[in-house]
Amino acid sequence: MQQQKEVSRRNFLKNTSLVTAMGLSIPQIISTAFAAETSKKRVTIEKDEVILFQGDSITDAGRKKDDSSVNNASALGNGYAMLAAAEMLFKHADKNLKIYNRGISGNKVYQLAERWEKDALDLKPQVLSILIGVNDFWHKLLGRYEGTVDVYNKDLRALLDRTKQKFPDVKLIIGEPFAVTGTKAVDEKWFPAFDEYRKAAREIADSFDAVFIPYQSVFDKAQSSAPGVYWTNDGVHPSVAGARLMAEAWLKAVKG
Amino acid sequence: MQQQKEVSRRNFLKNTSLVTAMGLSIPQIISTAFAAETSKKRVTIEKDEVILFQGDSITDAGRKKDDSSVNNASALGNGYAMLAAAEMLFKHADKNLKIYNRGISGNKVYQLAERWEKDALDLKPQVLSILIGVNDFWHKLLGRYEGTVDVYNKDLRALLDRTKQKFPDVKLIIGEPFAVTGTKAVDEKWFPAFDEYRKAAREIADSFDAVFIPYQSVFDKAQSSAPGVYWTNDGVHPSVAGARLMAEAWLKAVKG
Repeated sequence: MQQQKEVSRRNFLKNTSLVTAMGLSIPQIISTAFAAETSKKRVTIEKDEVILFQGDSITDAGRKKDDSSVNNASALGNGYAMLAAAEMLFKHADKNLKIYNRGISGNKVYQLAERWEKDALDLKPQVLSILIGVNDFWHKLLGRYEGTVDVYNKDLRALLDRTKQKFPDVKLIIGEPFAVTGTKAVDEKWFPAFDEYRKAAREIADSFDAVFIPYQSVFDKAQSSAPGVYWTNDGVHPSVAGARLMAEAWLKAVKG
Repeated sequence: MQQQKEVSRRNFLKNTSLVTAMGLSIPQIISTAFAAETSKKRVTIEKDEVILFQGDSITDAGRKKDDSSVNNASALGNGYAMLAAAEMLFKHADKNLKIYNRGISGNKVYQLAERWEKDALDLKPQVLSILIGVNDFWHKLLGRYEGTVDVYNKDLRALLDRTKQKFPDVKLIIGEPFAVTGTKAVDEKWFPAFDEYRKAAREIADSFDAVFIPYQSVFDKAQSSAPGVYWTNDGVHPSVAGARLMAEAWLKAVKG
């Protein structure tokens, strides 16, 4: 299993060199990642819809927690959620979209569950985007949390069941947890254990008919134009460039 | 003069109706505004360049003033400067760009001049983008400032002379001060006096061979898809959508 992954990683590195040699732009690289990693499924954004971003610090991105207002810059933070929101509010100015960010730094799945009523269901989202999992793994690695990948899997499925029960037609977007090596926080101790969380997220997306965003391969492939630390300094939290990279991938998951 | 403006405004309204009838997208509308209002001049962004955004609250956009670090989300705020920076850092990941925001809320031109050494010249920018003027007019209207449009004109020219003396090859981008009516802060008392500041900024851009960004017509034309308050709640400070609109116009002023 691990050997297979290493072979696949070597093939990937060969492929990214090829991508660079072909002089592809970053947006083209992302399209390539999508074509390779995802189905052609997209979420359609309709008039008057509520779009909710949920997750941990990557989604939170310094948003003002005491500002619950809609489509507000401070309330959206300055990460991928804000960048994707800005793009949607700009391109679909005639659609009366209502966009919220309720990511909270440090959150694991069980912590989303604890605040799900207030921070998700009460907002009645038509489109729900969730990126969660890196803390479920990382905090365990650091000895600050006991949950395993099975807990992550079970808790996230329960959360989505609960959501679907209340809103059967909610359009789901699940982001792949990602980690970039050669950075401050991510080293060889992360692998292959972390890959299990990525795999779980992908399988959950399939089970719930969600659009899956393959952030790991997006970040991997982006390294053909700049090193990992350019996109995320510590390997977990994206830089401005990394947030924009994520927003580009996120926006490929929707159509207007 | 004023009559001419009204005629031109009526023609503009006819044109925007036409634009809407033609079903143009917002990016197309911005291109139209650019084609009508500006020369084809663009600033070329080269490898290793320092790009500096200067201005008032519109540029500031809640940036953390105690964070002077480069390419940093908090230090870039969450307005048009951050959105334009994110786009450049994403698309030109291989160019090692260094992007700063030093806008400060409430600033008029003389206040830029007071901090110009530390907040502009010391950063040695190759590309310098300035958006200033709305407070020079607004604070006078509110009786909190005595400077006239002649002071604005003279002070901004002096600031650019000083900059060119130190960096003869600096690439300048001058944004047009703008105000959107039918909002909380902007009413008929603003016109036609405010238009003189717009005119001054445009003439200064011409004199200094700067690329001029016609934000007023960009905001005017955007109203064919959503009302003014959608783009700026008080008529001066852009919403998330308005900031993205400005970033789109700004990005049209540069090429990679």
